[in-house]
Amino acid sequence: MDVLVPFDVRDPKSRLDSVLDADERAAFARATCRDVLDALAAAGFEPTVLATAAVDWPPSVVVDDRPLTTAVNAALTERGPPLAVVMADLPLATPAALSRLTKPDADVVLAPGLGGGTNALVVRTADFAVDFHDASIRDHRAAARSAGASVASVDSFRLACDVDEPADLAEVLLHADGRAADWLADAGFELSVTAGRATVTRAPETG
Amino acid sequence: MDVLVPFDVRDPKSRLDSVLDADERAAFARATCRDVLDALAAAGFEPTVLATAAVDWPPSVVVDDRPLTTAVNAALTERGPPLAVVMADLPLATPAALSRLTKPDADVVLAPGLGGGTNALVVRTADFAVDFHDASIRDHRAAARSAGASVASVDSFRLACDVDEPADLAEVLLHADGRAADWLADAGFELSVTAGRATVTRAPETG
Repeated sequence: MDVLVPFDVRDPKSRLDSVLDADERAAFARATCRDVLDALAAAGFEPTVLATAAVDWPPSVVVDDRPLTTAVNAALTERGPPLAVVMADLPLATPAALSRLTKPDADVVLAPGLGGGTNALVVRTADFAVDFHDASIRDHRAAARSAGASVASVDSFRLACDVDEPADLAEVLLHADGRAADWLADAGFELSVTAGRATVTRAPETG
Repeated sequence: MDVLVPFDVRDPKSRLDSVLDADERAAFARATCRDVLDALAAAGFEPTVLATAAVDWPPSVVVDDRPLTTAVNAALTERGPPLAVVMADLPLATPAALSRLTKPDADVVLAPGLGGGTNALVVRTADFAVDFHDASIRDHRAAARSAGASVASVDSFRLACDVDEPADLAEVLLHADGRAADWLADAGFELSVTAGRATVTRAPETG
């Protein structure tokens, strides 16, 4: 199945700015996106990166500088269903987790993200448009139902864990082993286990 | 399969103390535990609550006031495998999500929680003991492997979402519809959708 992977080239992962500078955020976002592309390819998807500006590294890229929702809906209209959309910031995504997206026989399949987002979806009907915003999962469910489309969910921790905030980096170190995890380790991040949930610390720069 | 549901009667959900007083935390924890018990029963498990002090409401309860790890390992030894352990603070747990715990044909099946915890597990070998602590998921994996036990994971967002912190309440309002979600709504909690992840607000008390 064709899959779009929206990728923000310009100011990715801005909510990580307390722990990563702009160049680091760009490098980490790229490592994560490449992990997602590899996992998608291993799961049999044919990924196209939908980037906000030109990039030179993915195998297939379309540049569209419009807002995320507009760009994805334009691609949905142009390519037609079936089409999957998978966010680029899912460093825990595995081929097994991504394969689950195509299993439910529903017009719209949704994988929720932490905090109400929609981290991945499969669209098999022309009567559904995406609307990415905060807490979009509720509105995607409602939109599908009001279009008369059948809806299913994929219950995946790995697809729910997008990396938006510093605390999310702990999940990468705990559960991932690809480029994003390697990048964090190389940048000096380590798990910090205190009372409550694991967080991360960063080793002071040397030299 | 028999399943233990450890339940802290004395000071449950202490990290919610910024938004709920002690009586409210007790009531919310009880509502959540009852949701988990219902979902387990619907999934064909036979749950026993492993409580830190007497409670009058579950169908089957064993009181053990020792620390969580000690109490669970004592019950594992006494009852023998196979045995499941499912945390009481999983308000998003559904029968479908819980049923996935018994699917993998492995000696130890682990369902990770956010932040490195272990929210549910199935033990089919006498050579494995639990050790619940922060970031226990890594140590449970390692302990199973060093015991020569096969290990599998269940990739479930619903089982990963325990409720420890105020931000977790948003997941309940977004994805659950049982007693815990009703209790929060009755207590005045509503989703608050701003930039970033959904959070909750609580209506001011009236009267």
